[in-house]
Amino acid sequence: MKASRLLLLLTLLCTSFFASAQQEEEARVEAKMIRSIYDEVLTEGEAYENLRYLCKNIGGRVAGSPQGAAAVEWGRQLMEAYGFDKVFLQEVMVPHWVRGEKEVARILNSKKLGTEEVNITALGNAVGTGAGGIVAQLVEVQDFDELAALGREKVEGKIVFFNRPMDQTQIQTSTAYGMAGNQRRSGPSEAAKYGAVGAMVRSLSTDFDDYPHTGSTVYTFNVPKIPAIAISTNDADLLSKLLKDDPELNFYFETHCQMLEDVMSYNVVGEISGTENPEEYIVVGGHLDSWDLAEGAHDDGAGVVQSIEVLRTLKAIGYQPRRSIRAVLFANEENGLAGGKKYAELAEEKNEKHYAAIESDAGGFAPRGFSLDVSDEAYNRIQSWVPLLAPYDLHKFDKGGSGADISALKPQGVDLIGLRPDSQRYFDMHHSAQDVFEIVDRRELLLGAAAMTSLIYLIDSQGLYEDQRGK
Amino acid sequence: MKASRLLLLLTLLCTSFFASAQQEEEARVEAKMIRSIYDEVLTEGEAYENLRYLCKNIGGRVAGSPQGAAAVEWGRQLMEAYGFDKVFLQEVMVPHWVRGEKEVARILNSKKLGTEEVNITALGNAVGTGAGGIVAQLVEVQDFDELAALGREKVEGKIVFFNRPMDQTQIQTSTAYGMAGNQRRSGPSEAAKYGAVGAMVRSLSTDFDDYPHTGSTVYTFNVPKIPAIAISTNDADLLSKLLKDDPELNFYFETHCQMLEDVMSYNVVGEISGTENPEEYIVVGGHLDSWDLAEGAHDDGAGVVQSIEVLRTLKAIGYQPRRSIRAVLFANEENGLAGGKKYAELAEEKNEKHYAAIESDAGGFAPRGFSLDVSDEAYNRIQSWVPLLAPYDLHKFDKGGSGADISALKPQGVDLIGLRPDSQRYFDMHHSAQDVFEIVDRRELLLGAAAMTSLIYLIDSQGLYEDQRGK
Repeated sequence: MKASRLLLLLTLLCTSFFASAQQEEEARVEAKMIRSIYDEVLTEGEAYENLRYLCKNIGGRVAGSPQGAAAVEWGRQLMEAYGFDKVFLQEVMVPHWVRGEKEVARILNSKKLGTEEVNITALGNAVGTGAGGIVAQLVEVQDFDELAALGREKVEGKIVFFNRPMDQTQIQTSTAYGMAGNQRRSGPSEAAKYGAVGAMVRSLSTDFDDYPHTGSTVYTFNVPKIPAIAISTNDADLLSKLLKDDPELNFYFETHCQMLEDVMSYNVVGEISGTENPEEYIVVGGHLDSWDLAEGAHDDGAGVVQSIEVLRTLKAIGYQPRRSIRAVLFANEENGLAGGKKYAELAEEKNEKHYAAIESDAGGFAPRGFSLDVSDEAYNRIQSWVPLLAPYDLHKFDKGGSGADISALKPQGVDLIGLRPDSQRYFDMHHSAQDVFEIVDRRELLLGAAAMTSLIYLIDSQGLYEDQRGK
Repeated sequence: MKASRLLLLLTLLCTSFFASAQQEEEARVEAKMIRSIYDEVLTEGEAYENLRYLCKNIGGRVAGSPQGAAAVEWGRQLMEAYGFDKVFLQEVMVPHWVRGEKEVARILNSKKLGTEEVNITALGNAVGTGAGGIVAQLVEVQDFDELAALGREKVEGKIVFFNRPMDQTQIQTSTAYGMAGNQRRSGPSEAAKYGAVGAMVRSLSTDFDDYPHTGSTVYTFNVPKIPAIAISTNDADLLSKLLKDDPELNFYFETHCQMLEDVMSYNVVGEISGTENPEEYIVVGGHLDSWDLAEGAHDDGAGVVQSIEVLRTLKAIGYQPRRSIRAVLFANEENGLAGGKKYAELAEEKNEKHYAAIESDAGGFAPRGFSLDVSDEAYNRIQSWVPLLAPYDLHKFDKGGSGADISALKPQGVDLIGLRPDSQRYFDMHHSAQDVFEIVDRRELLLGAAAMTSLIYLIDSQGLYEDQRGK
């Protein structure tokens, strides 16, 4: 330890030595309020039953779909019924991608297996093959460097099979997802640059099973759009094994997806208006759209019902916020992010000062803490609250990303925060047919809502800055 | 802050100021070893497939059952196959309780519902009603004080219905389980003291569903043994509501369980022998028996396969322990604890010095840390390892209980530790028909094994005391 650091520590110790009785009293009030937040959510919380409705009565809700429209109206009615001070919609044009008939894929002439069906799903935003499908040989690669090394000669006319698995040794599965993600996001266009006729991506999953995982791909401007699919991890392993002995086997797939004209959708906003600074906003949100293969329970039905639960809880315990607190159900996170962009655009247009924003879009699992994309001063302030939150199993308060929808607020200098639930199970079912209501645990979901409510209460009542009225 | 505490802090600061380069180098070696433990477990771990076998090919394994015997032989063969230095059995006499035919229960003459079937299960160790069943009125109580206040006059000839729910506001569900647990454990005998003919307990569950949760009851010596059952939480709520309007409704239940003569079973022990102090033992264990309603996947198949995985991993990475490391699969935790007691008894008899023991018996969920029933010196030593373990999402290292099986070692002065997985989901399915393989997550299970392996590595290589050879 350097002498300067020792001196700093001594200063800090002396300061705390004279910590005022007033501060201790404040901490007692805060602790009591947080306890009452948890008591309310754990005994009266409605997020779980709200999620059941969203999953079972509406289901998967891709941007632009009838279910997407139903979800908007559900969110609006629910927040109206809770009697929030304001409930309104923000118009957003969203892409309208449709999957069409169920996809088919076959290994055609394996030396070992002959013809064999495998489990695939079209990637979101992708063009389809149409009824005729595609037949071609496969070329398996781990990454874009390997693809480039093969070059047009070995890729042209083939289906590129991106088969780099998620790294199981990463403790945070979200890190592994990030590391493998460019295959799905950019792989199809990268393959097309070398003349590939199709692209197939190993499902971005930590599990070994037969479920393919969809997710959006982004076609590069001026590169031919080729059909693109994800294959289940089990079938990816099978295929990779077969290709070692039989590199010239033919593969068939057929997808019927297409991108239609953009349609109107909405962000759904509920608000409890502030008593002292109503023109300052704290946002808590999740995205209302989901993929179509299941019910979008964890992704991101959880974030939606938790965000509404935050406002319901603040109202139920009679907390009157200084600032206006908004629950925002964003449109179109999955394949365009139009809702998040529109929200930020309108905030700027209307000169709405956003004080902080929290997003829940990592599943309704037991919360571990928060990821902080905030200023140093706000970071230190939040660290000072750790003793208040640790009794609720919240231990992680690290610098890091927040959430896709709220990230558009960053250029406006807003402090951004992401709820960080335990990540282990998320990519087992993320974007697959397994993301259904039944795999969400009631208490885990509610604890996420209580954690966000508590942090928002602290941010609102204590402020993130010395000047508690804002920056 | 008191002046004395300030002085203490200053001393600590100065000590760390002169922390040696050697210590830093040691920390680097330890960090690397822990990383290699996690890499091995997360990529080559076999605990999940072992659990699949135990659950699907053997299933529920109550003490004394044929499945219990199969599990012993499975554990022995598996550890032999892994080539551990020693694998042996310890004879243990265990109770032999059998459930018999499936239980039946009916509300007989509800004003609202007429006759209505409800979901019950006999409590472990309980006597049965036999084919005739029992018909009686119910008397609902929340606790033993209420029962005592009612007295013999209002209880005699009736079935006492203990209906105190688990407290949802507890953050650790294990705390709520402890608070509600005396109803099941002692409720039947308490009821019998006042002349009750039967006892029914609200299932000890955090969930609201139709699954009854079994678990052992303990009859008090010299008090009549009365039939005892658990009712699902949904049916407990229904019944409680009906009783408000209709306190004299009749209730019927029929159970066919009985306690037979004790039979021989075994603790299964695998060992990697120590290189420096082979006569000192570090134990990692779980219990091999389970209830019969499901597969005993979380309780405690998880602890069993994790304990074996600890030894497999140490061997795989080539770690040669100073002390002997034992995986112990204990017999009969659920309804007698005979295995844990026998293990401690034999350790004392053979004068085996046990250095530390860790148990995993709180489910195969994502680990949060460890609960430490250890000396102050060992506690401080373990705290010094937190920076090495926090990167693996291990944040909780609090004083507290360890595990039922290893607790019999406490009188021998052994430092005892419990793995603490996240507790939120455990009591949704604990002791019910839902504790099956499918609800265990592969990564969560493996991370628990890696956490225990890492802690055992640190305990063995660094010691819990200044004199690293032991206390």
